[in-house]
Order: sequence, then C-alpha cells, then structure tokens
Amino acid sequence: MGNPEQRMRLSALRRVRIVLVEPAGARNVGAIARILKNMGLGPLVLVNPQCDPVGEEARQMAVHGGDRLNAARQVSTLPEALQGCRRVIATAGRETSLNLPAEAPRHCLPWVLDEPDSDTALVFGREDRGLTNEELNLAQRLLTIPADAAYESLNLAQAVGICAYELRMACLNPTEVAPPNLSTEAPPDLAPHDQREGFYQDLEALLLRVGYLYPHTAASRMEKLRQLLNRANPSANDVAMLRGVLRQVNWALQDTDPTT
Amino acid sequence: MGNPEQRMRLSALRRVRIVLVEPAGARNVGAIARILKNMGLGPLVLVNPQCDPVGEEARQMAVHGGDRLNAARQVSTLPEALQGCRRVIATAGRETSLNLPAEAPRHCLPWVLDEPDSDTALVFGREDRGLTNEELNLAQRLLTIPADAAYESLNLAQAVGICAYELRMACLNPTEVAPPNLSTEAPPDLAPHDQREGFYQDLEALLLRVGYLYPHTAASRMEKLRQLLNRANPSANDVAMLRGVLRQVNWALQDTDPTT
Repeated sequence: MGNPEQRMRLSALRRVRIVLVEPAGARNVGAIARILKNMGLGPLVLVNPQCDPVGEEARQMAVHGGDRLNAARQVSTLPEALQGCRRVIATAGRETSLNLPAEAPRHCLPWVLDEPDSDTALVFGREDRGLTNEELNLAQRLLTIPADAAYESLNLAQAVGICAYELRMACLNPTEVAPPNLSTEAPPDLAPHDQREGFYQDLEALLLRVGYLYPHTAASRMEKLRQLLNRANPSANDVAMLRGVLRQVNWALQDTDPTT
Repeated sequence: MGNPEQRMRLSALRRVRIVLVEPAGARNVGAIARILKNMGLGPLVLVNPQCDPVGEEARQMAVHGGDRLNAARQVSTLPEALQGCRRVIATAGRETSLNLPAEAPRHCLPWVLDEPDSDTALVFGREDRGLTNEELNLAQRLLTIPADAAYESLNLAQAVGICAYELRMACLNPTEVAPPNLSTEAPPDLAPHDQREGFYQDLEALLLRVGYLYPHTAASRMEKLRQLLNRANPSANDVAMLRGVLRQVNWALQDTDPTT
C-alpha cells in the first residue's frame, strides 16, 4: 500500500509524540489514545497528569486504543517530555503574547514529518488554561485551530483529533495538502540594514576582544553568525536588545580589566 | 473581516445541517454541540436519539455550546431530517456495498458549501453500526475519514469534529490560513531540544553575571531572546557555535576578574 515516499512519511508519523501537559480529564486522555491509534500516530506522553490515565473512565473512551494508554509515558516536566525532539510545535489559542505567529494546523504540521532523524513533538496544554508562556517558548512553532469568534475554545480531545487527522492527511498526499507557498514576509518593524550592520560590527569587536575570533578567521565565522541571525528576521527592537547585551558584556569586561 | 466571497461561504457554513442518526451517547451529542459552535456550523438535527440530548451529561460536554443543544431539532426519520436539503453527504466506514466511491473529507465537503440556494446536510450514523444502506442511499456522496488499518473506527464526536473543521477550513481564504511570516527552511541538522535548552541556561547565567539581567527580570527578557533564536531554527552546529561564544566570554571575564 502506498509508494515508498508515503511509507516513509507514515513511519515519520509514528515518531510524532503527542505531549499532554497536566491533563485533568481521564475521558479526554482515553479519547486521545483512541484517535492516536486511529490515525497511526506516535506515543502519548503525559506531563504530570491530574487524572488517572489508565483507570476505568480513560479505558472506556479508548475502546480498542487501550494499548496506547498502557504504553503512555508519564514524566514530571515538559522539558523531560521533549528530550531528543528536534522539532516541537505547541498549540495555543489565537491570542498569545509571544512573537511567533499562530499558524493553522495545515500549514505547520507537515514540518514535523520532514524531520527524518529524530522524534518530533506536538504539545497540548491544560483543559482550562492551556500552556504557560514558558512552556510555549520550548517550541519553535505555534499552532492554532481556526475557530468561530463566538466560541473559540475547543475540547482537548477534539483539538488533538483534528491535529492527528491533519498529520495523517499530510502523509497520504503531501502534494495535495502541503502549504502552497511559504511566505518570507518580514515582520513590520524589521531592523534596518545599518542597524543590523552596526550590531555585527559591535559583535565582531567583542569576539575579537575575548579571543573567540582571530583576525584571520573572523570573516568566515562572522558569516555563520550573520546567517543565523538573519534567518530570524530580527526586528528593530530585537537588534536593540542584542546591542544592549553586547554593551553590558563590554562594560563587565572593562570593569575588571585594567588594561582597557 | 474577510472578503465578500469568504463571508458568503461562512454563511453557507451556517446552513450545513449536522444530522445524527440514533445517537446513543449523550456525551457525544454534547461534544458535537460544542464543536459545531466552535466551527460556526449549522443546526444539529437528531433522528430518533437513543439518549437524553439535553440532560446533564450532554450539557457537561457542550460547555458553552449548550444553546446548540437547546436548539437541536428532533425528528423520527432521516428523510424528515433532510427535508429541504439539496446536497447531502453521508459518512461511512471504508467498506460499503454501495457503488458510490468513499471520498476523503477534504475532497467532498467543499461541495456542500457551493450550494447557494438551500440548506445542505452531513449525516452521521450510530456509534456502533453506522448507517444502513437505505440511509446511505439518501445521500449523493459518501465520505470516509482516512484511518490506520489497525483501528479504523473513530469516536462519533471525533468524526464530526474533523468534518466540521474541514468545512471551516474550506471556507477560509487560503491567504488567511497561511502564516504571516516564517521561514520554514530549517537546516537539516536542527538542534535537539535539550541542546537548545543548555544554551539558554548558559546564556542566562552569563547575562546575570555581567549584570544585563537581574533575577526579577530575567524570565521575561530570556523569553524574548528565546523567541528570537527559535525563529532562526538553529542547527546543532549553530548552537554549538553560540555555546563556544559564551564559553569564551566567560573565560575572558574570569581571566580578568580576581573575584571568580
């Protein structure tokens, strides 16, 4: 069944961990075990569950997905749950105070299937309060399920079900479901070129000063640092913040170094 | 919000009836009321329900979708439920003895939104036995949700949730669903979670040391720095390079600071 590429993607699907942070509803956990088995997804990981994930209520909802409940791993913190994962997507409501854009499931989920060499994770928050900012910051991308403004809060098991279905769909027919175009549109207050350049010059001077760079290797190393920061599309505020860091490090060095 | 065409489709969404034939689980009916409200879909119609669709269990699952339970229409036969509908899609497992092909939700659901002049319907069968052939024959198209051969039977509320979500997605303008900005060109050797975390911890320690951070402000400032770096999708090499920078700065500080 299916071509080799599709089989590869279906096997990537089995490496997507579904991480639930402090789930409080045993029935939700059971329903999630069932839909994960329906959709052929990876293991269930429970962070500090606030309910009995292998009790009667959970089993009743899992039906023939009970094996997924037995195999669920329980850990006490989210970082533990994410160990070894290179790509992590967190789910959130539409409004977050983070700078990451909230993406529709169809847009961001295929990204975890393109990771061939390690596990990946999709993180869901508490039924009543979702994920904290600190938890959201452990992910590289944020997912929001589009909903009607009249009532935006989905049941946890429904949210997992929709994402599990999207992941399976992304495996079955990647060309049909893949995001049509990746916009590289910059944030509205993208740092101007000269501000970025000023930062790179300050950075190079500091790295020479602390002996991380040597004059004959500085150019190639600075190029790597530039590429990394440019990929983040830093805003003017971001660059101002980074220059503040450099100033403070310089100040600390000067303060303790009588030769400067 | 949205262009006129999108508004027209969202209003078509409110004319899609969700018809449940002899649902036996009050909790399922409640969960369905909730997801229909989440997704902005049309009315719920119950054919000869085998449970109390407005009792305590249903309400508990509906949460703020209780109004959809109150407004649900109860009828005794499927033809009654379909009165006035021109386009009807029925849901089924993969195997049916009918001649109609089973279509994926993404393939067939947009069809009901293209009907400008009348209500349309999406019909779901009993939790245990689905729809009879006679009932399936009242529809023009058959929908099957793709599932893993190991366990193909979805919970009723999950099946409705997935279809409701697909219908909403079919309404939204693709440009709205696409992300505002995000380079998804991740390097092939994306840094694992624990390596990134190790870097953030080293960075925080250094920034406290040089007096850029203070203990009471560290969290919010570190959050901004994380967001910035996460946007760059750093590779394992990138993070190793950044940790090298930190080590060297620490070394330079130590070298000149007799107190450490």
